Amino acid sequence: MDKKKLHVIKIGGNVIDNSENLYHFLKDFAAVDGNKILVHGGGKVATQLSETLGIETKLVDGRRITDIETLRVVTMVYGGLINKNIVAQLQRFGSNAIGLTGADGNFIRTKKRPVKTIDYGFVGDIDDKSIDPKNLEKLMDAGFTPVFCAITHDGEGQLLNTNADTIASALAVALSALYETTLVYCFEKKGVLQDINDEESLIREIDPVRYERLKEQQIIHSGMLPKLDNAFTAINCGVKAVIIGKSDDLAQLKHENSFGTRLSK
Amino acid sequence: MDKKKLHVIKIGGNVIDNSENLYHFLKDFAAVDGNKILVHGGGKVATQLSETLGIETKLVDGRRITDIETLRVVTMVYGGLINKNIVAQLQRFGSNAIGLTGADGNFIRTKKRPVKTIDYGFVGDIDDKSIDPKNLEKLMDAGFTPVFCAITHDGEGQLLNTNADTIASALAVALSALYETTLVYCFEKKGVLQDINDEESLIREIDPVRYERLKEQQIIHSGMLPKLDNAFTAINCGVKAVIIGKSDDLAQLKHENSFGTRLSK
Repeated sequence: MDKKKLHVIKIGGNVIDNSENLYHFLKDFAAVDGNKILVHGGGKVATQLSETLGIETKLVDGRRITDIETLRVVTMVYGGLINKNIVAQLQRFGSNAIGLTGADGNFIRTKKRPVKTIDYGFVGDIDDKSIDPKNLEKLMDAGFTPVFCAITHDGEGQLLNTNADTIASALAVALSALYETTLVYCFEKKGVLQDINDEESLIREIDPVRYERLKEQQIIHSGMLPKLDNAFTAINCGVKAVIIGKSDDLAQLKHENSFGTRLSK
Repeated sequence: MDKKKLHVIKIGGNVIDNSENLYHFLKDFAAVDGNKILVHGGGKVATQLSETLGIETKLVDGRRITDIETLRVVTMVYGGLINKNIVAQLQRFGSNAIGLTGADGNFIRTKKRPVKTIDYGFVGDIDDKSIDPKNLEKLMDAGFTPVFCAITHDGEGQLLNTNADTIASALAVALSALYETTLVYCFEKKGVLQDINDEESLIREIDPVRYERLKEQQIIHSGMLPKLDNAFTAINCGVKAVIIGKSDDLAQLKHENSFGTRLSK
């Protein structure tokens, strides 16, 4: 029997920070056919609220330290303000969304990052056992569309902050056991560009052989490298394809190969 | 065929404000057999956060006005901080909780209160069509325990603030179509007391005849009156029984008639 199809779609903070872009994106997301999951990042609101409350933002090597005060803020902003407003908009567009952290339904259970040289605080790392796909299937089979923010839990009562890209990828990999899964990263560019200054130079498809060639030619470098490395790791773990594209263009997803850059085997 | 049994259990802000009481209550809630729904109020955190953010709390006749800034705060505090921490605790105690506003799953759709002499702001009123019991049944049949905070939506993308007592009562009434429903209000006293200063003077059962007598004797008056009037309204609308008891004693719920005051026909 053919597997059911599933899209796991991730939007970053830049979409959330622009209410017009967000409105447009959510309308298009609601119109995506079949099973789908939305994963959203945080945006600037959490940083702004922290500043207003006098909570210092601590970064080590560009990574945010989540102390107990910061965890309170992200739980309020990601899990409350952003997540519930997204859900209310999706309901308006006819999508039966349910807003979730990984604690809800025990959907994503992580482990607090061990302290080595740096104490990242209340940050949860995902491992193979973090996600039970059957548990999420029950929710989707009941007719609901999961909307995840970047918060998980350890199963012992502790909420933890977890990177939204990693959540999206881990969900896509785990759900590949039950679904033919496409992972979609929405960001501000049209996809992987041959020339970073030319939006028209979009590369439509990349397979592992072409990926190696693009790296050799240094067309893919710096910021794009870890993103694509992670994408191919997800593909090697069962995800059918990873698409990287512009949030404004999501409506094009329904037309085969007309949205973003498609990575597959 | 016998209807499935359901408990709708509501806790107020006083339980939420005391982390020890809350821990104790959630452990007992997780142990309640069968289908159950938790509804929680707000507590002092929202007021404290509003103060810190310099948002003035406006009350008219003792009722809070929810302006757009206050709505942001309650969405963060009720829907994020409190709701998600309750869910994480319940998961720890083995209850497969999912934290919800009325926007999630379109479970509670309300109407913004019309402006007459007072503009209450973003407050949503519940009517007969606010809750579709089949929609919630799907979630519970999939094995999840709903945990509602006091936020709803209008179906047009707008979140709204709604009284938690009213949400609990409306859920119990709507779900009575499918379940044999008991509505449980947890508060700081053991139940309805013959003598308000004597916790041992608990009245175990009140039916409509006894209720009239207790009112005549002025044993029930002031603050307790609207609570009990609402309880009997719920019972007249299909709820099997309403129990009013102390949150600390919830574990007694499993022993027939040993928890709080039971109101029924």
